[in-house]
Amino acid sequence: MRNVLDRNQDKAEDNRKILKEHNVKMINMISSPGAGKTTLLERSCEYLQDKVNVGVIEGDAYTDRDAKRLERFDIPIVQINTEGSCHLDSNSVAKALENIDLGSVDVLFVENVGNLICPTAFDLGEDFVVAVLSTTEGHDKPAKYPMLFRKAKATILNKTDLLPYINFDLPGFEKDLKDINPHMPIIQTSATQASGIDQWNLWLMGELKG
Amino acid sequence: MRNVLDRNQDKAEDNRKILKEHNVKMINMISSPGAGKTTLLERSCEYLQDKVNVGVIEGDAYTDRDAKRLERFDIPIVQINTEGSCHLDSNSVAKALENIDLGSVDVLFVENVGNLICPTAFDLGEDFVVAVLSTTEGHDKPAKYPMLFRKAKATILNKTDLLPYINFDLPGFEKDLKDINPHMPIIQTSATQASGIDQWNLWLMGELKG
Repeated sequence: MRNVLDRNQDKAEDNRKILKEHNVKMINMISSPGAGKTTLLERSCEYLQDKVNVGVIEGDAYTDRDAKRLERFDIPIVQINTEGSCHLDSNSVAKALENIDLGSVDVLFVENVGNLICPTAFDLGEDFVVAVLSTTEGHDKPAKYPMLFRKAKATILNKTDLLPYINFDLPGFEKDLKDINPHMPIIQTSATQASGIDQWNLWLMGELKG
Repeated sequence: MRNVLDRNQDKAEDNRKILKEHNVKMINMISSPGAGKTTLLERSCEYLQDKVNVGVIEGDAYTDRDAKRLERFDIPIVQINTEGSCHLDSNSVAKALENIDLGSVDVLFVENVGNLICPTAFDLGEDFVVAVLSTTEGHDKPAKYPMLFRKAKATILNKTDLLPYINFDLPGFEKDLKDINPHMPIIQTSATQASGIDQWNLWLMGELKG
């Protein structure tokens, strides 16, 4: 396992170097299955498409359903099917990068395989990780899966439109996150209702300029 | 990896033999994080406690929050913390079995680590797997994570109380499941609202007798 992670890290550094040479910022989006990453990316593409050049790497265990949902945008999309593996690794991302004209991309989103654990251990060469959690998964998830929330530069709390219908302890959630990663911003969104999306995109634009 | 799975399978068969000797049925519950496995177990314990002797093995990457939620029942509960590993394996379950008086248990629920992929590859020695999916994760999950739904003996579709507030294509979901596992029952529940729980428990009682 140590060996696997060491090799992954070496390749991740290669990816990071290539991306830096082309001035591309890569963002690794990690969440559980069905937290709303693809819908968030749709909202981000709508906002960003006349401001910066966006590309997407779609990671899925099987199927290309998520990639198909993004096809309406005129952007480069590369699908990685992990054939049952539970996370992307830097080697598969390196191959995807070969199929993207990096000179014409400013921001490259990577939608990782839906999983709160394994993707966290595999650096892909990204500039930073964004964690996405949906309210319906429960407020206890940061405490139960701290690795992701420790690593993330921001956490998106998605599906806030469902808060009135569920038991979600927002102060408890925020307190747990503060214990794990004290200065990390928490951005509340409902991607389906397009609420909070401006806040997410403004934060993102700030990071892209930084 | 082959080696890891082979060794896991050997130990799983040992567990299966021990459980059979003690007439214990073991059920491996697999879902994404936050699909409602623990709440379902609470509802099942309430229903089953005066009918059969229940035990629980709680798998978590970190924390014992789920086990604590079940402490109000006077049943044996063994916590396995995987320390960041994304699934239970047959070896950790074998150790847990040593800490349970199997002579006084009829049904042993295993709540696996929240993850739709990795736990599917690791036989624990269970009698069967039950998949739990929550409506809020989206109808496309069986097609995207077919391994679990191919292996499961039943699928629980939980959080049906949220169906009015989300886009969930129920016929599409059922069609995908039928393609993957044609005769598998789909049981709709809302564990928080205690709806559909009778259907789940009746199905379970039927399996325990069989």
